[in-house]
Amino acid sequence: MLINAQLYLIIFFTQSLMRLFQTHIDIVDDFDQDLIEQLLVLAKKHDFMIFEDRKFADIGNTVKHQYGNGIYRIASWSDITNAHGVPGEGIITGLKEVGLPLGRGLLLLAEMSSKGALTYGEYTTQTIEMARRNQDFVMGFITQRCINEHPDEDFIAMSPGIGLDVTGDGLGQQYRTPRQVIVESGCDLIIVGRGIYGKGRDVQAEGRRYQEAGWSAYQERISQ
Amino acid sequence: MLINAQLYLIIFFTQSLMRLFQTHIDIVDDFDQDLIEQLLVLAKKHDFMIFEDRKFADIGNTVKHQYGNGIYRIASWSDITNAHGVPGEGIITGLKEVGLPLGRGLLLLAEMSSKGALTYGEYTTQTIEMARRNQDFVMGFITQRCINEHPDEDFIAMSPGIGLDVTGDGLGQQYRTPRQVIVESGCDLIIVGRGIYGKGRDVQAEGRRYQEAGWSAYQERISQ
Repeated sequence: MLINAQLYLIIFFTQSLMRLFQTHIDIVDDFDQDLIEQLLVLAKKHDFMIFEDRKFADIGNTVKHQYGNGIYRIASWSDITNAHGVPGEGIITGLKEVGLPLGRGLLLLAEMSSKGALTYGEYTTQTIEMARRNQDFVMGFITQRCINEHPDEDFIAMSPGIGLDVTGDGLGQQYRTPRQVIVESGCDLIIVGRGIYGKGRDVQAEGRRYQEAGWSAYQERISQ
Repeated sequence: MLINAQLYLIIFFTQSLMRLFQTHIDIVDDFDQDLIEQLLVLAKKHDFMIFEDRKFADIGNTVKHQYGNGIYRIASWSDITNAHGVPGEGIITGLKEVGLPLGRGLLLLAEMSSKGALTYGEYTTQTIEMARRNQDFVMGFITQRCINEHPDEDFIAMSPGIGLDVTGDGLGQQYRTPRQVIVESGCDLIIVGRGIYGKGRDVQAEGRRYQEAGWSAYQERISQ
């Protein structure tokens, strides 16, 4: 779907606004090693981190290889990745074997923004418990609200499904505004995709718009 | 982890015993388009189907691209793939857009074999309901038991975590025997990985052993 050049353009136009660049490396049609090298150069130059949104969801022995091996070698370049708790705690153990020595961090999917998501109730509770038992590697959650309950917890709360103009995409995605997730739900970071680079959008202008909306919401939250 | 040559060897030694070849294409270190072409030639020659065990787990708009695009273009060569129900029904809608016109089939993960898996209770019930609403594309389940309840249901039940010699792998995987899953739990198909190609194993001899154990269990079930 994407080609290298599009990734570069998104980075070029959003660099001073962006702190974390989220990738879906497996939808890049002309992926090659050069893309990774360029990405790392740009990350250093513009001071952003890289988050491969891989949503690992297999048993420990498999994700270990999916994370560290194959042609993508995700662990070698992605500062942060994420995983579902659905296979049980072995998924964290497997990823940790590869990621911890490299200083990487893992996000668990506590809640999803899509319609009919099964991330609620006991599923979410158990996922959070897995994170609490693995705080050396799990740095936070993909979530719709702040998860921290105990005074010693500082899990970061990152929210996808952010949109200023639309409420859905026809394939089940549901959008909330930066204010809703940051002020009302206490999240720390907004993840914006098609709101910025969607068809017909001015990437730079939209990037600025979301950055300002996020910052303004953050200021409102900390002044409360 | 794997290199092309190892995949070819596994196929070579198990071809006459195997009906479905399960891949984790993203752990092949030297993947290239030639591998896919060779795989398709071998599948035709030895009459097996290909099942990319991708465990899709993202929202509809993302999995659509992960399935049809990127360098793997999974939908173009894999007869069957699988997905978690966790993002909600949009994941099926997204995959179906790509897979249905190509005559592909989808398996949903109703139950996992790993320790502490969250695939139980309401999670599993909801996943099964999603499958029932999408029988034009969902052909069955990754499961530990037969799911069919209504007379008109013919979902295939495929079980991973099969081992004749071991009960676990130290990373949360738990093994059951072919007899347990086929006779006792009513599953249709066993998925064997490291039991056949694990370190130090004679791939051909182990392939035969699992094929015989599976066939014998199947005969026992249908004679009951």
